[in-house]
Amino acid sequence: MFETIRLSQKVDKEQYKKAMPELEAKLGELQRQAKDLKIPILVLFEGWDAAGKGTLINELLLCLDPRGFNVQITLPPNEEERLRPFLWRFWTRTPEKGRIAIFDRSWYRRVLVERVDGLVKKSVWASAYDEIESFERQLTDDGLVLIKFFLHISQKEQKKRLTRLASNPATAWKVTEDDWRRHKQYDEYLQAAGEMIAKTHTESAPWTIVESHDRRFATLKVFETFAQTVQARIDAMKSAAARPAPPRPAAPAEAPSFSILNRVDLSPALDREQYGKTLKECQAKIRDLEYKSYKKRLPVLIVYEGWDAAGKGGNIKRLAQGMDPRGYEVIPIAAPSDEEKAHHYLWRFWKKIPKAGHIAIFDRSWYGRVMVERVEGFCTEEEWKRAYREINEMESQLVSFGAALIKFWLQIGNDEQLQRFQARQADPNKQWKITPDDWRNREKWPQYNAAVEEMLYRTSTTYAPWTIVEANDKLYARIKALQTVIHAMETRLK
Amino acid sequence: MFETIRLSQKVDKEQYKKAMPELEAKLGELQRQAKDLKIPILVLFEGWDAAGKGTLINELLLCLDPRGFNVQITLPPNEEERLRPFLWRFWTRTPEKGRIAIFDRSWYRRVLVERVDGLVKKSVWASAYDEIESFERQLTDDGLVLIKFFLHISQKEQKKRLTRLASNPATAWKVTEDDWRRHKQYDEYLQAAGEMIAKTHTESAPWTIVESHDRRFATLKVFETFAQTVQARIDAMKSAAARPAPPRPAAPAEAPSFSILNRVDLSPALDREQYGKTLKECQAKIRDLEYKSYKKRLPVLIVYEGWDAAGKGGNIKRLAQGMDPRGYEVIPIAAPSDEEKAHHYLWRFWKKIPKAGHIAIFDRSWYGRVMVERVEGFCTEEEWKRAYREINEMESQLVSFGAALIKFWLQIGNDEQLQRFQARQADPNKQWKITPDDWRNREKWPQYNAAVEEMLYRTSTTYAPWTIVEANDKLYARIKALQTVIHAMETRLK
Repeated sequence: MFETIRLSQKVDKEQYKKAMPELEAKLGELQRQAKDLKIPILVLFEGWDAAGKGTLINELLLCLDPRGFNVQITLPPNEEERLRPFLWRFWTRTPEKGRIAIFDRSWYRRVLVERVDGLVKKSVWASAYDEIESFERQLTDDGLVLIKFFLHISQKEQKKRLTRLASNPATAWKVTEDDWRRHKQYDEYLQAAGEMIAKTHTESAPWTIVESHDRRFATLKVFETFAQTVQARIDAMKSAAARPAPPRPAAPAEAPSFSILNRVDLSPALDREQYGKTLKECQAKIRDLEYKSYKKRLPVLIVYEGWDAAGKGGNIKRLAQGMDPRGYEVIPIAAPSDEEKAHHYLWRFWKKIPKAGHIAIFDRSWYGRVMVERVEGFCTEEEWKRAYREINEMESQLVSFGAALIKFWLQIGNDEQLQRFQARQADPNKQWKITPDDWRNREKWPQYNAAVEEMLYRTSTTYAPWTIVEANDKLYARIKALQTVIHAMETRLK
Repeated sequence: MFETIRLSQKVDKEQYKKAMPELEAKLGELQRQAKDLKIPILVLFEGWDAAGKGTLINELLLCLDPRGFNVQITLPPNEEERLRPFLWRFWTRTPEKGRIAIFDRSWYRRVLVERVDGLVKKSVWASAYDEIESFERQLTDDGLVLIKFFLHISQKEQKKRLTRLASNPATAWKVTEDDWRRHKQYDEYLQAAGEMIAKTHTESAPWTIVESHDRRFATLKVFETFAQTVQARIDAMKSAAARPAPPRPAAPAEAPSFSILNRVDLSPALDREQYGKTLKECQAKIRDLEYKSYKKRLPVLIVYEGWDAAGKGGNIKRLAQGMDPRGYEVIPIAAPSDEEKAHHYLWRFWKKIPKAGHIAIFDRSWYGRVMVERVEGFCTEEEWKRAYREINEMESQLVSFGAALIKFWLQIGNDEQLQRFQARQADPNKQWKITPDDWRNREKWPQYNAAVEEMLYRTSTTYAPWTIVEANDKLYARIKALQTVIHAMETRLK
């Protein structure tokens, strides 16, 4: 990897002074254009201690409008961060469309420092590569420009710089014992960095190795790479906009060839007495499991999806009733806010991921992408088709982090929905529960049905299977959901 | 305070069973109405250990739609929280309009536990009363319903309960050494609680002491108080809506009788050579001060306000240029998002308060309330008039927390603005800087001028004075701003 790098490359002062003003102006102009075109940009800096990261980042900022970027410093994770999947703190900090995020170190910490210093086990850092791959792909698929710099200096040069810093009283504080320890482990780091770059150098998110012995050379290389990458994206967007949009392909037969929903037997029911007794037992068990999962730091995510009027609200209420309010949260998902729309659609769900030891109950969820957003045309066909894989990847990361993930589809018949709608309409105490939207959605039952079938088919994984809840009888549905949660939590707590 | 409380009050089982179903239904109904009317509700529970807070909170939740509330647990502050004014973590958690926030312990922690346990000095907890008073007033003025419960039991009863819990293996974990220690200090806590209730029992946010020896009595009292309080607000809103709005009073002469802006001499200027030299010196100093303020954990807030085209952007850039990007953030303030609109208008600024040791540069700020929102009619007259005091209170809290707070008004002449607008319009590289909105605002110069005069007059305080920056000459303005920041930071770091 690093053998062929010519670290001795230099730029002389004259050349530098000549090139910079134009480059600086260009960067400012590109930032404005990217803002107008709503392109999110993420620039990350990795590299050796004393390679000049701070100075380079500042040089870059000097050319940018400070209203359009922010700088993210990656320190060792704090407690809030340790209690969540490792990408959580990066997901939640991805830039809004039109803004620039500059990361001073990044998610690559895991496969460099945390790996070499032995802070995580091999199985953990090795599997981080998959997570990083899907993280970066999801962001770049969504239009983010990702620029990755590795600032490279030799061990000899590093020693020289650390020694110089340490011997100046004004800068001595900058050199820590960790710096010296890592300096001695240079070869181990070099090997890890080589592997990292080889494994994560992709077409949509390539690495740029910056030879950093000469500050001027490094600055020019960073600036030019930034300018070229952003310019290329802007050009691509403009020429795409100039061309007519390709004809939307005729919708292929998306649904799997067999139906999952048609095979659901909706007849199961419970009588009220049996229900009351079982409900109490289940709720007592849930409370106990809630405490145990808190003690064992088990994160729990429970997802409720289902037809309008399928009884999600009442079902969630019976589930939450038994719990200690300090340990769970119900997260209702409505249409995204403006801020949420300006990010990758999974961003708002990443933000809501519960701390280990807590229970999050999602009333609707990220599956909106492949249901309402698909059917109503709120996203493009390409976007919802991509979403199945993105969702499976997110769920896989949650489960490998240790979460119990339980997904309910509450199924009712078309007739049953009609009856419930009519009953709500007729009862003054329940009229608030029904809106014109509900009737409109009902007319699109076949389209929704096809979307649900495909969703169940494509996102039932071994690690996060769907549980279909027969919900024509509400009492039965509540008990089934409770028992499913109990079983899943008990299994994870064994 | 507590002498007259009759702790022996009881409700028998029959009575309880009769009253509850109706109350429960009522609470659900009130929650829906409050949601429709966009009333935010905050319920807080304070009281003795083992008084039954957890159970009571759960009983309350059982009647509510879990999609409409969340529960906030107040633990000892974590590091993020300790590095900010003590109300920060409560401000940022106030409920959205139409939602209910339930606090299991609250900001009163400071004048109870932190006071009695000696975790904060007397001057700190004593001044917390003022901060709490203005916090609660600001929220209730904005329409929030604030319900405060204190769960009361005697020392004898507490001992009985702690002993019972400790002797049961299933619940023994619930009783900690801290509980026993606080039990022994019952009298000290009682005195502190008495003082707290006396000092913070206001008309808009009264305390309800809940006699909690009998669980049924306590539950009924909490439910009934909640129902009555929310019902009263709903009734008041409905009857206010039925009546025609009172005629808007003719705008009184708001501006102070003398003008501050007319007296500003806009002639100061710098030549470019002098500027270049001073700029470098100032930027070097700023970088040094940034590092020192990080070491000393000084929080710094710098606010930029001024006329359109007064040069805020360029001024901020010169200020930020010298800094280490890891220590500062530029926070551009635009129109509020939907989520922000659903909170008190100061909420979004509280969220942005920098950690101690960091520098936040606000490009526009909370003063939008008394300028653009006032002039454009985005808020009511009552709201912007109230805002002067609210802003002064917030700034006072920031300064007593230890922050350096620097506020710039960039002043240019009306003619100068016209010239700059025209120059921008004429230069293809600068056209992006000018919008039709700028021209529209310019036509309202006299109204904006009156608003600015009043703002400067009412919010120039000894602890957070305005600095008027003569900005007809951009170079002079930049150096003045830099020197002001340097002086303010040096003063605070002495």
